[in-house]
Amino acid sequence: MSAFFSPASVALIGATDRPGSVGRALLENLSGLGGRLFPVNAGRDKVLGRPCWRSLAAIGRPVDLAVIATPAATMPAVIQECVVHGVRAAVVISAGFREIGEKGAALEKQVLEVARRGGLRLIGPNCLGLMVPQAGLNATFATAMARPGRVAFLSQSGALCTAILDWSFRQRVGFSAFVSVGAMLDVGWGELIRHFGEDPATESIVLYMESVGDAASFMEAARTVAAKKPIIAIKVGRTAEAARAAASHTGAMTGSDAVLDAALGRAGVLRVDTIGELFDMAEVMAKQPLPSGPRLAILTNAGGPGALAADALGLRGGTLAELDTETTQALNTCLPAHWSHGNPVDVLGDADPSRYADALRVLLADNQTDGLLAVLTPQAMTDPQAIAKALVEATRGCQKPVLASWMGGDAVERGREVLNAGGIPTYDYPDEAARAWQYLWQRQERLRWLEETNRIACLERPAMSEARTLVQGHLAAGRNLLTEVEAKQILAAAGIPTLETFQAASEDEAVNLAAGIGWPVVLKLHSPTLTHKSDVGGVRLDLADEAAVRAAWCGIQQAVPAADFAGVTVQRMVRQHGLELICGLSQDAQFGPVLLFGAGGVLVEVMQDRVLLLPPLSPMLVLDRIRQTKIFRALQGTRHLPAADQEALADTLVKLADLALAVPELLELDINPLLVSAQGVLALDARMFVAHASA
Amino acid sequence: MSAFFSPASVALIGATDRPGSVGRALLENLSGLGGRLFPVNAGRDKVLGRPCWRSLAAIGRPVDLAVIATPAATMPAVIQECVVHGVRAAVVISAGFREIGEKGAALEKQVLEVARRGGLRLIGPNCLGLMVPQAGLNATFATAMARPGRVAFLSQSGALCTAILDWSFRQRVGFSAFVSVGAMLDVGWGELIRHFGEDPATESIVLYMESVGDAASFMEAARTVAAKKPIIAIKVGRTAEAARAAASHTGAMTGSDAVLDAALGRAGVLRVDTIGELFDMAEVMAKQPLPSGPRLAILTNAGGPGALAADALGLRGGTLAELDTETTQALNTCLPAHWSHGNPVDVLGDADPSRYADALRVLLADNQTDGLLAVLTPQAMTDPQAIAKALVEATRGCQKPVLASWMGGDAVERGREVLNAGGIPTYDYPDEAARAWQYLWQRQERLRWLEETNRIACLERPAMSEARTLVQGHLAAGRNLLTEVEAKQILAAAGIPTLETFQAASEDEAVNLAAGIGWPVVLKLHSPTLTHKSDVGGVRLDLADEAAVRAAWCGIQQAVPAADFAGVTVQRMVRQHGLELICGLSQDAQFGPVLLFGAGGVLVEVMQDRVLLLPPLSPMLVLDRIRQTKIFRALQGTRHLPAADQEALADTLVKLADLALAVPELLELDINPLLVSAQGVLALDARMFVAHASA
Repeated sequence: MSAFFSPASVALIGATDRPGSVGRALLENLSGLGGRLFPVNAGRDKVLGRPCWRSLAAIGRPVDLAVIATPAATMPAVIQECVVHGVRAAVVISAGFREIGEKGAALEKQVLEVARRGGLRLIGPNCLGLMVPQAGLNATFATAMARPGRVAFLSQSGALCTAILDWSFRQRVGFSAFVSVGAMLDVGWGELIRHFGEDPATESIVLYMESVGDAASFMEAARTVAAKKPIIAIKVGRTAEAARAAASHTGAMTGSDAVLDAALGRAGVLRVDTIGELFDMAEVMAKQPLPSGPRLAILTNAGGPGALAADALGLRGGTLAELDTETTQALNTCLPAHWSHGNPVDVLGDADPSRYADALRVLLADNQTDGLLAVLTPQAMTDPQAIAKALVEATRGCQKPVLASWMGGDAVERGREVLNAGGIPTYDYPDEAARAWQYLWQRQERLRWLEETNRIACLERPAMSEARTLVQGHLAAGRNLLTEVEAKQILAAAGIPTLETFQAASEDEAVNLAAGIGWPVVLKLHSPTLTHKSDVGGVRLDLADEAAVRAAWCGIQQAVPAADFAGVTVQRMVRQHGLELICGLSQDAQFGPVLLFGAGGVLVEVMQDRVLLLPPLSPMLVLDRIRQTKIFRALQGTRHLPAADQEALADTLVKLADLALAVPELLELDINPLLVSAQGVLALDARMFVAHASA
Repeated sequence: MSAFFSPASVALIGATDRPGSVGRALLENLSGLGGRLFPVNAGRDKVLGRPCWRSLAAIGRPVDLAVIATPAATMPAVIQECVVHGVRAAVVISAGFREIGEKGAALEKQVLEVARRGGLRLIGPNCLGLMVPQAGLNATFATAMARPGRVAFLSQSGALCTAILDWSFRQRVGFSAFVSVGAMLDVGWGELIRHFGEDPATESIVLYMESVGDAASFMEAARTVAAKKPIIAIKVGRTAEAARAAASHTGAMTGSDAVLDAALGRAGVLRVDTIGELFDMAEVMAKQPLPSGPRLAILTNAGGPGALAADALGLRGGTLAELDTETTQALNTCLPAHWSHGNPVDVLGDADPSRYADALRVLLADNQTDGLLAVLTPQAMTDPQAIAKALVEATRGCQKPVLASWMGGDAVERGREVLNAGGIPTYDYPDEAARAWQYLWQRQERLRWLEETNRIACLERPAMSEARTLVQGHLAAGRNLLTEVEAKQILAAAGIPTLETFQAASEDEAVNLAAGIGWPVVLKLHSPTLTHKSDVGGVRLDLADEAAVRAAWCGIQQAVPAADFAGVTVQRMVRQHGLELICGLSQDAQFGPVLLFGAGGVLVEVMQDRVLLLPPLSPMLVLDRIRQTKIFRALQGTRHLPAADQEALADTLVKLADLALAVPELLELDINPLLVSAQGVLALDARMFVAHASA
């Protein structure tokens, strides 16, 4: 990678002085390298008054980096020339590859082969190029060099690069590197992230992503780097997903943005929604520590803005700190009698700097607060600048993050400058600050997930050999879509509490099985073809005696065509009160096994109250993630139900994750419903699809 | 109201030249009135070199408006003096009333009595005052006068006023009026909205609300005015609601922010989440027409920014327009071959002004688009200013809204200026533009609701006399919490399809009723005390014969204490496949009857998939609103279920609304579940609480 970002010598292939051309723009931008730049053009000896070489060979000395702007059709030959000359890295600016169709794709493949054979690394094609401002390297055709700074920006859209660059001058945002990755034919996210993770000039890595490329490489690099430096990403395609047909609810999620979202979370990457947030969060995380919990104290000199901040926090699922008695008493001694006596802490319109600072110290000392947002409106008695100074002073050495919103225009501008200079991020409106707070907490949470992931990576995962043997047996028999009975056997073998289910091929067998299980029982259709049994009248509950079982047999038999009827299954009638959840797993083409957890039942697709989890898991990782569903609230107990056994639930998901890792042939699984109650969990129904992993 | 906003003469009571005092700040701000200002101070003949009067009487001529800054304790006497002198209106700046506790509240009450008796209108107390920039009237103690403009800003937070005012200078936002409403002791939202609705200088009304005050007056004024001018509001308290105990799911919603939200919607008020959006939307709606539908076309010169815009639209529930074949063909003729062939329409990085303009004309001419967002990044070949000019030219006279996002900094600044001058709102990022688009569509939708509300207001509502008689009978008998049988009778009387349910006091009676109804039947506990029947094992389904009924009777009897057992109810077993919804109604203290619609079942509180509706309703109003729930998707048909009878469902909610209006004694009602299927609706269970309306 060093050949890309700190090359000792650079050749520009396609150098020209034709006005308005990409080759000329590159030449001008690269001129800063002086004698380290070697313009190459087969037909020229001079460009823009500089010496120009007819070929790489003509240069007569080693070249680290080639920047290439010749037409796509010339590329295989140009790359071959680079290989022959021993060039280590190439940035291919030129377009005309896969984006123009099959012909371009074939050309691209050829280029890659030549490069790979010759050990040449490529960034691009079809990109704006790259910049390293500190090193004076501008290998782009952009109109200006980025400001130096400590953010590495990597973008899959060259056009977005031009907009961000232009914007960055005005906002005084600087970069350690600015890379347009283009089509990522060779060098992709993983290597770049790893490089900037080790680059001492880079404090945070900011990504604009359209696709993930090599998922394994991305995940591994992100996990390693995110533990040390913030990685902040915006990824488009959240909503523009094509609907997919799949054999299971879980299967329908694969390849989706939801899987990627789960993967980013597990990799420690902070995903934001807007470009504004992308760079704001890079700045905030450079200035402030991370909170150790989600609880925010709001300090304000007016009720309205405090309420706005609290609302914004609530809308984003945040947590207002609850002040303990000690804190309230301490505030009573330093605030006027009519302070708000709660969080937001309104220190009233006539607050002077020392009142703000006193209250801030009390709030930050409270163990129940994880950070603070200071809000100010410029009222008649307010001195925004002096209060800002007092705040900066009072937060010096503080281990909790502090954000500010000095609301207004010129009257608060000086105060904002004081805060900025003092390392306290300021926002025009408290809602933006509340949003930043939520992202800070999210990053902390994700760092914990990384730690936990590293911890459990050292543990040996169960071999699941019994389940594995069962699956391989079915595969050997040419089976793929397993029956409920078979699926449940595999779950039971994986250690997941399962309601035992038996198959009956005749009415008498059903009666005998029922008698053995104990009354009452449930009969369900057993069919090689129909898997949604309740839709066709194939489920009969609460059968209390032999007569009821016989009647149910006949009813089910009559409800479906003869070809679809292969007898029934018999199981115990479960009376236990609990919640019906769905747990599933599927194999994502990019990220491998993915687990799903959510509210179950027939409305699972409509309610979409679910989260995805990536193996391996631990109870902590499971609980942190499933807490984000609505159904989780019900698991903590409702008017109708006592709190469920969360430990048993977490254990089930951990085992499912182990099963997924141990048996890659298990392509899709839905446990729907998984009954969860105070007594534990029980898989009431299951569907499973297995195939050889290559399928 | 004219005495407040265009007074011929103003008295300042509490005028003083003491530096730093509110009285002096007011005096300085009001000085612009020249001879129309009469400073009053019992102890002075001159203030700040101007003549000062010892009392109102001493002025010797009529006074339209009194601005009062004397201490709270003096207020009853001061107001009395105003009344005696024939002052028409007073702005009470002073604090020290309800916000300091009981004593202040009593004082406030006294002040109001004096004013009401004397026909004097009051704004405040505890406010910053008011400004009318065009008239040179600044009756506030703020540091400067607002810029003149066409937005009336009304705020319940004085501190926020100071911040907004300071901000408005920098942003060049102007105001037709700037009013700090304070405690709204007398003049409230309703009168102010009505006033500015009729004020020709006001184009839009912008509100910061903490409480709604007189809800009826607010709703009536907002409905009338919003039909003519945009009313845009931010209301705090979205999330900081105390949990309430109530006898029904619907009852738990009353007094909540959700009720207010529904009311704002029906009143045509656009509710936004942030202060930034508040003024941005006032500006956008002044510049652009409203869309007639939600479908947005996105025009861009790069894929990435287009994808960002599409994502942002999707995240907010928006709709990307689908281009029809004709449009695609037209674009094929004016765009290069590699354009995106879909929406977002990527006209590629080398697009010149005419290509942008051509594509824009084609997109706006398409009947499948309701408006357009033009996105631009400053790429090598891009001329942001010329494209902006072409855009302004091409949209001239266009009846569809057009928004823009020229992304970048200085390179696009001139282009932004051209767009702004041409009336096309511009945003730094496309996500902000997508948000504005959604608000534009929301306003249009709300205007339609207003029209529909006006249309049905002329229709006679059913008298519901049979239901009314039933409720009054129960009240006369001292009953409040009705049984399932009673509640269903009332629903049936209101014309709502209801599963008939019979009461049985003995086992034999249950058997006889079941035989009369037809097998199979359902038995449920009938209890004067226990209303959540399934929790206690009080529901037995699918009873096929006499023996089953007898067994169920015994089972239910044994499941509950004797005191809670008053027999059973018997009803037909419904086998119909459908969705279980909840429909309810309750009486909100501020807004009167409120209906609830949502996903039913035991998880209703957890899933919170519901909307509130305010009577009167029509099928259109119902469908527009319930479309916002997730369960609505299931109503349109799922893998398991055919599409439900939406007409029957809408009709049920219309009838419930009529019932609520006709029978105000019906305080709370839950129909849970209401079974909805292709065959229609059926109320399977119902609970009702009635009381004399004053209760």
